[in-house]
Amino acid sequence: MSSTLLSRRDLRFLLHDWLEVTRLTERPRYAEHSRETFDAVLDLAERVATERFAPHNRAADLTEPTFDGRRVHIIPQVRQALDVFAETGLLAASMDASVGGMQLPHAVRAACFAWFQAANIGTSAYPFLTLGNANLLLAHGSAEQIDTWVRPMVEGRFFGTMCLSEPQAGSSLADITTRAEPQDDGTYRLHGTKMWISGGDHELSENIVHLVLARIPGGPPGVKGISLFIVPKVLLDADGAPGARNDVVLVGLNHKMGYRGTTNTLLNFGEGVHRPGGRPGAVGHLVGEPHQGLAQMFHMMNEARIGVGAGATALGYTGYLKSLAYARQRPQGRPLADKDPGAPQVPIVAHPDVRRMLLAQKSYVEGALALVLYCGRLLDEEKTAPEAADRERARLLLDVLTPIAKSWPSQWCLVANDLAIQVHGGYGYTRDYDVEQHWRDNRLNPIHEGTHGIQALDLLGRKVTMRDGAGLALLVETVRATVTRAWKAEGEAAELAASLGAALDRVTLVTRRLWGTGDPEVALANASVYLEAVGHVVIAWMWLEQLLVVEADGGPGDGPDADLHAGKRQAARYFFRHELPRTGPQFDLLDSLDRTTLDMRDDWF
Amino acid sequence: MSSTLLSRRDLRFLLHDWLEVTRLTERPRYAEHSRETFDAVLDLAERVATERFAPHNRAADLTEPTFDGRRVHIIPQVRQALDVFAETGLLAASMDASVGGMQLPHAVRAACFAWFQAANIGTSAYPFLTLGNANLLLAHGSAEQIDTWVRPMVEGRFFGTMCLSEPQAGSSLADITTRAEPQDDGTYRLHGTKMWISGGDHELSENIVHLVLARIPGGPPGVKGISLFIVPKVLLDADGAPGARNDVVLVGLNHKMGYRGTTNTLLNFGEGVHRPGGRPGAVGHLVGEPHQGLAQMFHMMNEARIGVGAGATALGYTGYLKSLAYARQRPQGRPLADKDPGAPQVPIVAHPDVRRMLLAQKSYVEGALALVLYCGRLLDEEKTAPEAADRERARLLLDVLTPIAKSWPSQWCLVANDLAIQVHGGYGYTRDYDVEQHWRDNRLNPIHEGTHGIQALDLLGRKVTMRDGAGLALLVETVRATVTRAWKAEGEAAELAASLGAALDRVTLVTRRLWGTGDPEVALANASVYLEAVGHVVIAWMWLEQLLVVEADGGPGDGPDADLHAGKRQAARYFFRHELPRTGPQFDLLDSLDRTTLDMRDDWF
Repeated sequence: MSSTLLSRRDLRFLLHDWLEVTRLTERPRYAEHSRETFDAVLDLAERVATERFAPHNRAADLTEPTFDGRRVHIIPQVRQALDVFAETGLLAASMDASVGGMQLPHAVRAACFAWFQAANIGTSAYPFLTLGNANLLLAHGSAEQIDTWVRPMVEGRFFGTMCLSEPQAGSSLADITTRAEPQDDGTYRLHGTKMWISGGDHELSENIVHLVLARIPGGPPGVKGISLFIVPKVLLDADGAPGARNDVVLVGLNHKMGYRGTTNTLLNFGEGVHRPGGRPGAVGHLVGEPHQGLAQMFHMMNEARIGVGAGATALGYTGYLKSLAYARQRPQGRPLADKDPGAPQVPIVAHPDVRRMLLAQKSYVEGALALVLYCGRLLDEEKTAPEAADRERARLLLDVLTPIAKSWPSQWCLVANDLAIQVHGGYGYTRDYDVEQHWRDNRLNPIHEGTHGIQALDLLGRKVTMRDGAGLALLVETVRATVTRAWKAEGEAAELAASLGAALDRVTLVTRRLWGTGDPEVALANASVYLEAVGHVVIAWMWLEQLLVVEADGGPGDGPDADLHAGKRQAARYFFRHELPRTGPQFDLLDSLDRTTLDMRDDWF
Repeated sequence: MSSTLLSRRDLRFLLHDWLEVTRLTERPRYAEHSRETFDAVLDLAERVATERFAPHNRAADLTEPTFDGRRVHIIPQVRQALDVFAETGLLAASMDASVGGMQLPHAVRAACFAWFQAANIGTSAYPFLTLGNANLLLAHGSAEQIDTWVRPMVEGRFFGTMCLSEPQAGSSLADITTRAEPQDDGTYRLHGTKMWISGGDHELSENIVHLVLARIPGGPPGVKGISLFIVPKVLLDADGAPGARNDVVLVGLNHKMGYRGTTNTLLNFGEGVHRPGGRPGAVGHLVGEPHQGLAQMFHMMNEARIGVGAGATALGYTGYLKSLAYARQRPQGRPLADKDPGAPQVPIVAHPDVRRMLLAQKSYVEGALALVLYCGRLLDEEKTAPEAADRERARLLLDVLTPIAKSWPSQWCLVANDLAIQVHGGYGYTRDYDVEQHWRDNRLNPIHEGTHGIQALDLLGRKVTMRDGAGLALLVETVRATVTRAWKAEGEAAELAASLGAALDRVTLVTRRLWGTGDPEVALANASVYLEAVGHVVIAWMWLEQLLVVEADGGPGDGPDADLHAGKRQAARYFFRHELPRTGPQFDLLDSLDRTTLDMRDDWF
């Protein structure tokens, strides 16, 4: 029986038939790899995710972490799973061999990680947060910091967090107040409170490496005065072994609707709340130069945002497969044409409205997965393309796509989960089936790592305007290349290409129109509509790309991939007929420079 | 401080300024009433909902009912609240004085009930299920049955349920197998299993009156052989007092994602599971004639469906008000124009994207509430209009609107709850705020009392085709009358009327097109898209109606309702600019007689 977490068949199609990841092995960084090693590591990820992560997904939801005032209690299966994960070495899947990494392409790594996210988003958050932390230090930390903190993280002995938000400053990092006072020994002492810190406390690892944004007194106000610090939960002794507790105190756990397996915390740094008379301040180590914290954090943030999109996709995907399996085995009702009340009931997949709900899910989750893997592939280009210009293009395109890769799956794979519940009917609303948990878990994704609205401002306010619009121009040019290929391919792809080409023209025109007014307030008031319209265009592009792979195979046949290809074709049609047209009214609205929300006054609500 | 459950100001606008409910007091049935009595009963509902229902809403979610194998345990606040509710007499708000009713108009009754649904959807389900049961018996039961079963329900001593679904037959009532064997004494003995029975067991009342669909052996197959029975949990002795237990056994409670305050049960009738050797079969009393069960149940079902829409609306409404209150007090960030990082943060309601999320919610929940109250008003017309033709028109229009009044709020007020979470950011994802519970609670509404897909089949397959399309013609004519009034009123209403008129034309055309093919399979495969498009047209109509009330007041002024009216105007604009245009691509799709879902094959998924 095939997995209900992800589809290996689809991963093969996307990674090999479409993205041709094996060709990456022609490059020095990946020269040790082959299609066989890629498949072996995907096997490993599928197996560990299936056997170690999926089985306690519900238990971790039902028995969320608790804090007794002294320590955090987490069901033991979480640590057991994470110990196995550490043994796989997958945390370092894409890292350099020099730090113990496998040097796998990011596209393959992202596919591996999706198995864990589909199996158990709560448990897999611990290593994936740690990875973001480690990657940041690899990019910005000193050799000594990498040796001290990254190596134990790669080995699974230390876990990592990112400490950005504060209770009075969620999306608004300019307003953080945690301060870091320089000491004579070169370290800093931190004082402040951080909110929404995932993995902020637990006993799953020997130590927790917090990466903390704070202000060095005397620095500039706003975001320009933010620096980044390593603040471990436990201080290391002279031999690098964990010794005394640092002054990082867990104030409490947040009790969430979903994602309950991951502790989410309010942390006090240097407040000595539980230890009056303790040392004044939490010991921290500056990463890089002072006042560069935001830029450094954004290095990790972009990665984290694509990771959120990947997690949303994985939750959508498993919900889709589970509702498909349910629809195939649940008998209910009869086909319209069958008037005989004595005839046997048919599986609900036979009903067109159920197929609609399944096909919608398929078009969302496979479209989103394509985008996530495409972003991984761009990261590989950015790191390893032989020509500098290609590396630069990949970086720029990835920059533009990041808010979409974060927000589109967060929005539409949540819709997929909603449809997965609906396919299950009343059963889907009970905790006897997985889909309600996926829906609750997935609801976090439009919030964390920058809300939907923040992504919208990022796309319209920054990404499409930067470098005189070079990012947008590159996106349009890249999509246009697909449209042109599809035109030449003729067949159905050419037909869909016409719709996508027209939508692409509108992206260019409305962007110009929004910024042509000289009134950024009107432009940005419509940023969310813009984000959603451009997102749909990007996913339509992903579907046209997939259709081109199918058509290159020579049209409908009876080969081993005939069903796969017919399904891809039908999902592409679905997206172009049912989804892409949604952008028409959105573009019209943007074109009208709508002021409805801008003109609304608080006292009119 | 104004309530965060519902808005009395909006209720006044809708009930008095728009629906002019006080004019109903000119009719004999409501002659004892006045604007003062209406307001007094709304005061009562608001007070009891606020003081008795809202305070334990979270507790009932966190501590759901449990079953120890012998009895069901429910937190005591539920019974305390229901005892107070019984004292208010509101269960009989719209019933005849002869059975202890207040003879309130349904529009006013619906407004009263919405307070309880907004405060605590789980606890309020018990009386509202009881009401549906009682109304069914008032319509179809014998005088003796009314006396025996309805009176104690009106007094709050007995509660009621509806037992339709079975484990193997959810939406497909044709497949129920519960059988009812006639006895010499005129009673029946029932054997079977019923699933998803809300309020199916508890100790909140002296007795539970189950209304059960079952088959009398020898009857026709399918839905034509279904009869309706009264099956009490506890048999009554010769004096009508509860005596021995009937053979109705609680097998277990369903553990739901939301709506957790309401027990939802799997019940065995006449299986004697816990009492081997017990009497063979559960004692039941036939309601009306044999084989009329489905028609009788549908009498109640239409009422229940509008009630579901009302509940969805109430949950959306309170989520809106809570997110508005949060947005007004939560400081975060600065206006775009303010470049000074030292300037104080502003409440998030100042940000256009937050206003967008609030305005969207306002347009959904106030539009939905208008529809719910309009349906109540139609019920009043159906019962009391002086002319038979008007009563008949009201009945027909209500019949057409019922699937929309059920499904539109269930879909869009859930979206409103999603936006309410988003406005709260990370806090909205925690159980420290109410909005996550509203979202979970509201997710049931597209499922129970006929799923979204079932409503779509009801609208397109039955309601718009019945009597040669008389229902649709009446809907179109009624909306057209508003469009014509708006044309004559000129001003902004005339402008919006043009859009609504065009959308209305498309409703007529696509309906004709879908049924013109002679291929019901294609038509019904697109039923959900049709339902959603027509739903948006209907809500746009509700907004145009409201705008006409505002414009009749003489345009923007500085009277006491200036802010209310400005808000209504802006929400109407929002709906016409951001929402109604969504129907364009939907109509296009319907016009294309789309076969995408129909052509999808199971093995292509």
